[in-house]
Amino acid sequence: MRILLVNGNTSDEVTQTLARAACDAASPDTEIVPVTGTFGVRLIENRAEAAIAEHAVLELIAEHAEAVDGVLIGVSIDTALRAARGMVDIPVVGMTEAAMLTACMLGGRFGLITFSASSTAPYRELVESYGLMDRLAGMRTIDVSFVEAFEGRDAITAPILASANALIDEDGVETLVLVGAAGAGLAAQLQSRVAVPLLDGITCGVLLVEALIKLGAPPPTRGSYAAPAGNQVTGLSETLTKRLKEYGE
Amino acid sequence: MRILLVNGNTSDEVTQTLARAACDAASPDTEIVPVTGTFGVRLIENRAEAAIAEHAVLELIAEHAEAVDGVLIGVSIDTALRAARGMVDIPVVGMTEAAMLTACMLGGRFGLITFSASSTAPYRELVESYGLMDRLAGMRTIDVSFVEAFEGRDAITAPILASANALIDEDGVETLVLVGAAGAGLAAQLQSRVAVPLLDGITCGVLLVEALIKLGAPPPTRGSYAAPAGNQVTGLSETLTKRLKEYGE
Amino acid sequence: MRILLVNGNTSDEVTQTLARAACDAASPDTEIVPVTGTFGVRLIENRAEAAIAEHAVLELIAEHAEAVDGVLIGVSIDTALRAARGMVDIPVVGMTEAAMLTACMLGGRFGLITFSASSTAPYRELVESYGLMDRLAGMRTIDVSFVEAFEGRDAITAPILASANALIDEDGVETLVLVGAAGAGLAAQLQSRVAVPLLDGITCGVLLVEALIKLGAPPPTRGSYAAPAGNQVTGLSETLTKRLKEYGE
Amino acid sequence: MRILLVNGNTSDEVTQTLARAACDAASPDTEIVPVTGTFGVRLIENRAEAAIAEHAVLELIAEHAEAVDGVLIGVSIDTALRAARGMVDIPVVGMTEAAMLTACMLGGRFGLITFSASSTAPYRELVESYGLMDRLAGMRTIDVSFVEAFEGRDAITAPILASANALIDEDGVETLVLVGAAGAGLAAQLQSRVAVPLLDGITCGVLLVEALIKLGAPPPTRGSYAAPAGNQVTGLSETLTKRLKEYGE
Amino acid sequence: MRILLVNGNTSDEVTQTLARAACDAASPDTEIVPVTGTFGVRLIENRAEAAIAEHAVLELIAEHAEAVDGVLIGVSIDTALRAARGMVDIPVVGMTEAAMLTACMLGGRFGLITFSASSTAPYRELVESYGLMDRLAGMRTIDVSFVEAFEGRDAITAPILASANALIDEDGVETLVLVGAAGAGLAAQLQSRVAVPLLDGITCGVLLVEALIKLGAPPPTRGSYAAPAGNQVTGLSETLTKRLKEYGE
Amino acid sequence: MRILLVNGNTSDEVTQTLARAACDAASPDTEIVPVTGTFGVRLIENRAEAAIAEHAVLELIAEHAEAVDGVLIGVSIDTALRAARGMVDIPVVGMTEAAMLTACMLGGRFGLITFSASSTAPYRELVESYGLMDRLAGMRTIDVSFVEAFEGRDAITAPILASANALIDEDGVETLVLVGAAGAGLAAQLQSRVAVPLLDGITCGVLLVEALIKLGAPPPTRGSYAAPAGNQVTGLSETLTKRLKEYGE
Repeated sequence: MRILLVNGNTSDEVTQTLARAACDAASPDTEIVPVTGTFGVRLIENRAEAAIAEHAVLELIAEHAEAVDGVLIGVSIDTALRAARGMVDIPVVGMTEAAMLTACMLGGRFGLITFSASSTAPYRELVESYGLMDRLAGMRTIDVSFVEAFEGRDAITAPILASANALIDEDGVETLVLVGAAGAGLAAQLQSRVAVPLLDGITCGVLLVEALIKLGAPPPTRGSYAAPAGNQVTGLSETLTKRLKEYGE
Repeated sequence: MRILLVNGNTSDEVTQTLARAACDAASPDTEIVPVTGTFGVRLIENRAEAAIAEHAVLELIAEHAEAVDGVLIGVSIDTALRAARGMVDIPVVGMTEAAMLTACMLGGRFGLITFSASSTAPYRELVESYGLMDRLAGMRTIDVSFVEAFEGRDAITAPILASANALIDEDGVETLVLVGAAGAGLAAQLQSRVAVPLLDGITCGVLLVEALIKLGAPPPTRGSYAAPAGNQVTGLSETLTKRLKEYGE
Repeated sequence: MRILLVNGNTSDEVTQTLARAACDAASPDTEIVPVTGTFGVRLIENRAEAAIAEHAVLELIAEHAEAVDGVLIGVSIDTALRAARGMVDIPVVGMTEAAMLTACMLGGRFGLITFSASSTAPYRELVESYGLMDRLAGMRTIDVSFVEAFEGRDAITAPILASANALIDEDGVETLVLVGAAGAGLAAQLQSRVAVPLLDGITCGVLLVEALIKLGAPPPTRGSYAAPAGNQVTGLSETLTKRLKEYGE
Repeated sequence: MRILLVNGNTSDEVTQTLARAACDAASPDTEIVPVTGTFGVRLIENRAEAAIAEHAVLELIAEHAEAVDGVLIGVSIDTALRAARGMVDIPVVGMTEAAMLTACMLGGRFGLITFSASSTAPYRELVESYGLMDRLAGMRTIDVSFVEAFEGRDAITAPILASANALIDEDGVETLVLVGAAGAGLAAQLQSRVAVPLLDGITCGVLLVEALIKLGAPPPTRGSYAAPAGNQVTGLSETLTKRLKEYGE
Repeated sequence: MRILLVNGNTSDEVTQTLARAACDAASPDTEIVPVTGTFGVRLIENRAEAAIAEHAVLELIAEHAEAVDGVLIGVSIDTALRAARGMVDIPVVGMTEAAMLTACMLGGRFGLITFSASSTAPYRELVESYGLMDRLAGMRTIDVSFVEAFEGRDAITAPILASANALIDEDGVETLVLVGAAGAGLAAQLQSRVAVPLLDGITCGVLLVEALIKLGAPPPTRGSYAAPAGNQVTGLSETLTKRLKEYGE
Repeated sequence: MRILLVNGNTSDEVTQTLARAACDAASPDTEIVPVTGTFGVRLIENRAEAAIAEHAVLELIAEHAEAVDGVLIGVSIDTALRAARGMVDIPVVGMTEAAMLTACMLGGRFGLITFSASSTAPYRELVESYGLMDRLAGMRTIDVSFVEAFEGRDAITAPILASANALIDEDGVETLVLVGAAGAGLAAQLQSRVAVPLLDGITCGVLLVEALIKLGAPPPTRGSYAAPAGNQVTGLSETLTKRLKEYGE
């Protein structure tokens, strides 16, 4: 099976890191198809940039969906997850959603380790939007920018471990999610030094997309994720225009 | 004072309807500046179209923010509300948010009357995202498309009144919000036939943006709505690029 | 327009402080009509005193409602807010409710800075009763009595700023409400030293009552805020007796 | 032991009905001391009347507390419950609180049968204020006024049974509370015709006040229920003035 | 009346301690019938041991229910509470449930003091399962095993008092529950050194079972606690087999 | 890989049905190892029987865990799920948990179709215990016993489809879970007649256990799922005794 790995940022090196982690997690017969945003910012750091990336992610999915069996959104805020589910007929999973649902199956309440102090509120809103606040035991944020977190993995090892221990000792978390591109690969490296399972979104995401592809649930024909009637479209890419125009045909 | 009224759809006739309702609600010395989306769909009907409109709304605000004192987002799903608040230093209010907060001040739990069955889930998610589920007593959806609701106001009067009565009788709502562009103006016309206050987002939105402009709260310098450091930008409009690049300068 | 500013305490100097802040916030054509409780305690400090003030507030509103266009309850626990809404046909807003709803429109979760350690639980119950717990990020209490807080503004500046910073750093609040009469006027003075918007209830309350008066929503004829049938009344003031007896006539 | 039974209404016949039910429930060595409000309305029907009764209930408790071992508030909305707990050193229980907590001990989620359509929202707010919404499975309101419910018990038997069955069939309630003075005594009469336990607040309240008196927990010296410092008092009864003035002495 | 006191552990000395506390709390005419688990572990320390004890508790109740008027489950995690309620026609109360509901009647939010760090999550799940999270202000765990807590009461006095003060100062609890067998008797001894009511489950449990026996609510004939049709049973004790086989006969 | 499929009932024909569905869902290289309860009831119908099955399920897992790589609990109420996770070092998933988490990944809120009216409350409690109430849009129960549901699949097809449509039309569910052994296999057969994805727990459970086995998260060494110190054991099977005694060695 083929899984589209969507990086909504414009940065190829992030895509490559995500792709490596995805390939490590994938089954032998799974092919990872990594793609990078063509407009927007290099690394999403705030609410406005994330909103613009919603559009960029949909463009990428519109362009590539026909050639794959499932989609993994490789942006830590799960950009455009619901919109994509309503646009294509194949499974779409968000990397942070995947890690949190996996944590649920390991038992107990989970903790999140995130980067960039200004991202705390948006991640909390993400957990709320999934209806998972009752499972969230705590969050710790390491206050380096996403760029620093991504580029300086050695420098963030110590604060990650300190955050992990604080979440276990003070908040009683029973599993941990290392959020974001910085976590891809790093979680596995640090697992032996953490007392509870340490999850990253790309690994969990690949496994869950594979499971959903095997499940083969049909797309809904009712509700907010069903394909609606087509619409008049202005100023979008050819493939995205085609998708929005031809809904329901 | 000047209020930017942002229609994230590409349809000028919707903008004009919204603008008329906004002018009716505004103080004599308030000028309404209506603008229309330049890309996307004619009338947002689903999740993908709403996600694309996030980008379109930010483009409009980036282009016009310097010439106004506050922004009212005139899309019923309050498209890009949080993103816009993080991007500009003036008050930004969403039309449906405004109606729901006004309902809170009138007392008790409110009800929503919406259009298009496929929009029920997204509106519920909107209420959840505002932390207002405890104030929502019920929702009724009139299953005509947004286009039909907007264009056929006479045809929807009877179902609106039926929904209003059902919400009062069965769900115990104490105020009502008539959601969307179709509600602009219509709420006032139907008020005399409804036993509880019937609110529309544009009227409430104009009044609350005016209040926030008078309040004059400074933009935060901390948190998820503070201006972050600038970023590398690709493929966006000149004004939007300028805003994202120059953050924090 | 004329706004009744109700102080449920028996202390005239508090009324005067509230009135000054209200006049500063009001539009040029708005007249503030301040009134003071005629029975009860000098400054409400506990649950029993607050319960008695419910009666005192209703007496004041019954006496003055006909001469004004809206009511602002100038007691930090929003004493008798719901009862007043059910008793008169004009808008009634509570000062703390107003600040919290304004905070909602500025974005993110808010924090409360309160006075008197024994008031923490009642304020939390107030937020719960408004269905706004999901928007409350934290509360800090400065343990001086309300009298000390009101009379010794200089002495409380440092602990207010310390609380503000703790709420921003540790709880991630994105706006702050300085609760109570002590906050009236003080919020504006301290704003420049706080990294997020710092709101006070009187300023927000005046702006929102003005907005509701402009809105002109009719009183409900159904539900718990509708005027019920009259009742047999014993031992109340003449105006309050008249109101309760004549309900629904 | 002696239990003060407080009727916050001014109606003696209601007091007598409540007292009869209380005596039926009480242990042989328990004396019920029934008292009636001296000001306010005959039967509380709305929010304003309930707010005034807060004061009336506190007057009664201030007058009689020294001669009893515990207090049962015999008003269905549990008027002044928290305020009374903060004012006296003996146990205070509300009749509807008592029935709901008893329902919790019988297992599963409970349902409420109430009177007067305009009371639905206030009762819901009461359940919320106790943090018991997760245990509330449903509410049905019989739309007769409290006066009619109290005076016309035969006429309300059929609608009570219909409501009970609807709550069991449609909402899955596993216990039922017949709210208010009308329920006192009536619950026992109708129990044999209802498939789940049917509770009334006076019976449950007497049993739980007795249990708390036996428990003998000391009054707190910290928190919102601890006796605060005394206050300057104006215009209240002698005994109530004494209590508020002498707090903490 | 006779109350069955069920210890789901296999340790007789725990049973004796619980029984002493129960006799101290009981009315003169109440007889406490203490029983001890016949299989499982000496002191339940984890989730698996608690699950096995569900079976052991049901065996004990099946064996003794006919000779008593009510049941108090004397295991701090309220083992098999719901199952027992569905199996017998007499009142069944859990010791920790009883303490928490009693705390509700004393007012405000409560705190829990527990033993064994690994029990924090299960106790939190217990509170959630009762729908009482809104009433829980905080939890502190003293990290000694249940055996150590039970056998070394002197050694745990200081940490209990420290936890109590932390819960009052930092979390604003207004009542405290000392959870588990270690708390039986100890709460009364330490009460004079704690600023808010300090409850233990056995004392509260005995008082509430007595109240429910006096109430005499009939067993439900509908819902999840009603006796279902009998079932085919394999490999259980004679009395338990009889009960499950004869359901509904 | 080898997956233990645990039927906590004593009925072999149920085990065989579950096993067939599990084999259909499993990857070619996955072996399903089905086992049946050795004591308890034929088909769990109530709370007491479910509590006893907790013990039976743990016996089966203790006996077979060493020979498999993961466990799927094939009882619709996910009997002993948390207890098993704390007892063994391999992944353990519950069939209904699996279906609900899969529904989360398909988007929107889900609905449950269950059997036996008396099971409605326990299933609701299950969803609450997973912290997933915000994702539950509705539940419909077909009032036949589990035996009838299991044995008479043809007879339940029409009510299942009616329930499915009601959940979609009235409650706005976007995915559906057909709960229980009756659903195994049946969901796939009925999918083409239902407008949204129709999930069954065995299919989802096998796919998610496979994913967790591939993930290879280590067992926690801290928290409520970590292996505790050993305990004194009485009257349990040899393998279960060994496990509880040797914890932590």
